[in-house]
Amino acid sequence: MPDQQVMKAALQAYVDRTNAGDADGLLALFAPDAVMEDPVGTPIKQRAEMAQLFRDGAAYGARIDLIGPPRGSHGAEAAIAFDVRFTPPGSPRLLIRSLDVCTFDEDGLITSLRGFWGPEDVSEDPVTSGD
Amino acid sequence: MPDQQVMKAALQAYVDRTNAGDADGLLALFAPDAVMEDPVGTPIKQRAEMAQLFRDGAAYGARIDLIGPPRGSHGAEAAIAFDVRFTPPGSPRLLIRSLDVCTFDEDGLITSLRGFWGPEDVSEDPVTSGD
Repeated sequence: MPDQQVMKAALQAYVDRTNAGDADGLLALFAPDAVMEDPVGTPIKQRAEMAQLFRDGAAYGARIDLIGPPRGSHGAEAAIAFDVRFTPPGSPRLLIRSLDVCTFDEDGLITSLRGFWGPEDVSEDPVTSGD
Repeated sequence: MPDQQVMKAALQAYVDRTNAGDADGLLALFAPDAVMEDPVGTPIKQRAEMAQLFRDGAAYGARIDLIGPPRGSHGAEAAIAFDVRFTPPGSPRLLIRSLDVCTFDEDGLITSLRGFWGPEDVSEDPVTSGD
C-alpha cells in the first residue's frame, strides 16, 4: 500500500501540472491501465481518452484551486475537493465545483479517478463573467 | 435516479443533523440496508454500528463545517468535503479533515457512504487547543 504522503503528493502534482498546462506530466501520474470516470455516472475513459482530456485542459487554460488539503484514507485511496476553471472554444470561462477520489498502486501511480460533478455544478466563472 | 437537488439536500441534512446532535435524524437519512465505510480502508459498518457512531458523535459534540457546496454527479452519487470537530472522552477537541462520497436510492436515501480521512488527517483542533 502506498504511503499516505505519496498519494497526497501525487494529487498535489495533479493540481500543479494542470495549472502548468503539462498534459504529459499529468498522464505520467497514472498507471498504464488506469481508468477515469469523470464525471461520475458517465462511461469509463481509458488512457488515450485521458491524454486527450489533459491536452484539451491545457489548451483551454484549465486552472485548479484546492478548497482544502488532500484527504487520505486507511487504504490505497485519497481525495481532493477543488474548483476548476477553463475556457472551452467559443465559451465564456467556466467554473466547475468538483471533487476527485483516486485509487493508487504500490508505486503511488493513480489506477482510477472518479470525478464528482453534476450539470448543476457548472457555471460561468463569476470572477471573469463581468469582463 | 434521484434528482441532484434531492441528493444535495440529503447531504446538507446530514451536516445540519450532525450539528444539531440529532442521531435519530441522521439514521433516517439512510436506507435500511445502507452500508458505511468510514474511514475508507476499514471494515464496512451496518446500520446498528452506524446508529452507535451517530450517538457517539452527538455525545462528543460533533460539528461539521462544509468547505464548499456539495458536489453532484451524472449518476446517483454525490459528495461533500468538510472539517469535523468532536471531543472524545478524555481527549482534547479533535479536527478531522474529511470528505464523504455517497450513493442514493430512488427515494433519495443514502445507500452507501465512504468517508475519506487518514491517520494524518486527524489533529488537535487548533481553534480550541490553546484553551
